[in-house]
Amino acid sequence: MQMKTIAVIASCDTKLKELTYIKKFIENAGHRVLVIDISIGIEEPQGFDIPREDVIAASGHHWENVKNLSKGELMELAVSGITKLIPELYAQGKFDAVFSMGGVQNTSVAVSGMKQLPIGVPKVMLSTVASGNRTFEPLVGTRDIVLIPSIADLAGVNTITRTVMENAASCVIGMVNNAGKPLGNSDGVVVGTTLMGITNDGVCSAINHLTSKGIETIGFHSTGVGGRAMEELAAGGTINAVMDLTIHEITSEYFGGGFSYGAPDRLTMLCRLGIPLLVSPGGLDFVDYPLDNMPKDIDKRKYIRHNAQLAHIKILKHEGIDVAKITAERLNQSKSEVTLLIPTNGFRKNTRPGEPLYDKEVDDAIIETLIENIYNDNVIVKYVDANLNEESFGIAAANEMIEILKRFGKLDANFDI
Amino acid sequence: MQMKTIAVIASCDTKLKELTYIKKFIENAGHRVLVIDISIGIEEPQGFDIPREDVIAASGHHWENVKNLSKGELMELAVSGITKLIPELYAQGKFDAVFSMGGVQNTSVAVSGMKQLPIGVPKVMLSTVASGNRTFEPLVGTRDIVLIPSIADLAGVNTITRTVMENAASCVIGMVNNAGKPLGNSDGVVVGTTLMGITNDGVCSAINHLTSKGIETIGFHSTGVGGRAMEELAAGGTINAVMDLTIHEITSEYFGGGFSYGAPDRLTMLCRLGIPLLVSPGGLDFVDYPLDNMPKDIDKRKYIRHNAQLAHIKILKHEGIDVAKITAERLNQSKSEVTLLIPTNGFRKNTRPGEPLYDKEVDDAIIETLIENIYNDNVIVKYVDANLNEESFGIAAANEMIEILKRFGKLDANFDI
Repeated sequence: MQMKTIAVIASCDTKLKELTYIKKFIENAGHRVLVIDISIGIEEPQGFDIPREDVIAASGHHWENVKNLSKGELMELAVSGITKLIPELYAQGKFDAVFSMGGVQNTSVAVSGMKQLPIGVPKVMLSTVASGNRTFEPLVGTRDIVLIPSIADLAGVNTITRTVMENAASCVIGMVNNAGKPLGNSDGVVVGTTLMGITNDGVCSAINHLTSKGIETIGFHSTGVGGRAMEELAAGGTINAVMDLTIHEITSEYFGGGFSYGAPDRLTMLCRLGIPLLVSPGGLDFVDYPLDNMPKDIDKRKYIRHNAQLAHIKILKHEGIDVAKITAERLNQSKSEVTLLIPTNGFRKNTRPGEPLYDKEVDDAIIETLIENIYNDNVIVKYVDANLNEESFGIAAANEMIEILKRFGKLDANFDI
Repeated sequence: MQMKTIAVIASCDTKLKELTYIKKFIENAGHRVLVIDISIGIEEPQGFDIPREDVIAASGHHWENVKNLSKGELMELAVSGITKLIPELYAQGKFDAVFSMGGVQNTSVAVSGMKQLPIGVPKVMLSTVASGNRTFEPLVGTRDIVLIPSIADLAGVNTITRTVMENAASCVIGMVNNAGKPLGNSDGVVVGTTLMGITNDGVCSAINHLTSKGIETIGFHSTGVGGRAMEELAAGGTINAVMDLTIHEITSEYFGGGFSYGAPDRLTMLCRLGIPLLVSPGGLDFVDYPLDNMPKDIDKRKYIRHNAQLAHIKILKHEGIDVAKITAERLNQSKSEVTLLIPTNGFRKNTRPGEPLYDKEVDDAIIETLIENIYNDNVIVKYVDANLNEESFGIAAANEMIEILKRFGKLDANFDI
């Protein structure tokens, strides 16, 4: 078993007892600890590997000049500093994994750093705020941060904190011992694609078709996180071709809310990457809102109850025109060929004639607006006479993707579709 | 390193590839796998350690009689079955830790079982739904479930799923190798107490005072989870004395919503346990609501912005009377002595004269209603002339707790306060 270095992010003033306990526990398991101090109080912790002065310095400030700022302002500097410092230290090979524990403030600062690390690098957050009515987004973003509810307040080493701290530290120890390999650039073709429940059948047909041909294809749930995660992985080179079949997050962004809100600027970066890219307007025609917090004009809208919490709401014609314009503008930024594959019989489940979210006027307006507003010759528009959630659409999309990969030289010209 | 058994909860029809991969990975690390099949599809998986027939049987049904029910109905049976089966198998010593991975349905079923296990038993959930705008509550409840966002859809073994699956399995391996001890009954005195940001100063004074006397005291955040977690640990014997200084969750329950909603029937079980118990009405005078989803009559109410997301809203007089009645009713169920310690100058931060949530009429109504409605002679009422969030209140509460522990014979009669 190789000795690894685990960075421990901690407030070395208020959490010294807990830090000391964890450090010893990790060292007893045969690994090194690199302590990163994120304290912002008036006490002056000394002798830690990365002092708080370095964290604040990474934010562009000198500790001595800012130490009298308010707690809130200092926390912002700590967030900004750790966001820069963690990826720098990781790139310098200073640690192999990162661990932190604490309350709301410590958690905010620590996860800001963890979110900058590649997927696969072990990241463990033992937190008092990983429970109840809080949401995941601020804690994990698009990263594989291991979250552990601390059950009790993390103050002192007692019956409960000892148990959860030992388990949490054992997670990071287990990962550095047995796995913990960061994702890097892929050698072969790795296709990313997007789906959600209401495009699942169509997209899974596409995935299965590509996979059956030996083309690795990875699905992401485009419900506010997955689309963003896929784009980041494409920018980083882990994913090197994209079949973006569910761009619903663009509609959520336009509405400024709803369950799938949280993935801004979808498509923009993708279109600039110059990688093999196929786009379809999956889910562009609806928004999802909690049943207890619906848009004010819900009475004028067509909607269905998707589950016990959520409604799926068909957008109105003028909104369809708006989101189609936004989509066209983003496609127009393409630096190399992009295929826009349009299903002519609905962009999701439940939108065929006779189904509850069928609205031909809205769907046609989206298609017409897309066509009218695309002026970049790199964008190739094609149609499939199907609903996006049908198997026939999925297979058509997969075959189209194979042709694109051939044109990009990623597959042999004789590759059999 | 001792060989342990890790239960893997999986849908053995749709997730067979992933299950096979994880099983081999865990076995290569030197441990046994106990596969628990929770599939509900039409395929008939065979040869797994705990077949789905056993899961459904634990819900009181025969698979053959129910297998044609809808997916939703079968899922409910699987939840009900796994909720009974997991603690049974654990009690029989059939496994030492539990692991699962999957999408929304698999996650719902698996965590229902994990929530039945004691804190400390390793529980790992690799899930597609541990991200975005979802909340923690349905996934973790009051337990230390290790949550890992899967980043990509968990379909097949690919560049990304391989990485997150290996890391997730390594967490459970690390815990069984290095920690993973379940909490049990405590021998010495272990005091549980409740706090939140707005009672933090007072309660921490109490904790520090008790801790300085060598009395182990553990804080729980009563924001919809902690109060419930503490009561469960008291019922289980890990905590054997309680200083319940923040019962704000009673007000959230009365309102039927808000950030701290989710801990029903607070105090009821505690009062019946017959353990040393001190209660104070901390935070009983307000509710917390998201700024974007405030009560409809917010214009008539006194409130402050607590942070970027939440408002703290003083309740009205008639509401104060209602929550005080509810509290009194619960205290009246006490089987042995309970001390109600009332601070006469406000139940939380910002409620002293001149402070933004000061409202003497409401606070007095709460105190008067409490007194008028307590008829059980087991309830001893005492007053402290302070605000609950002040150090002097905390020390008074701690000293009162010491006297209670003495009367219960948990501390020597000569113990020095």
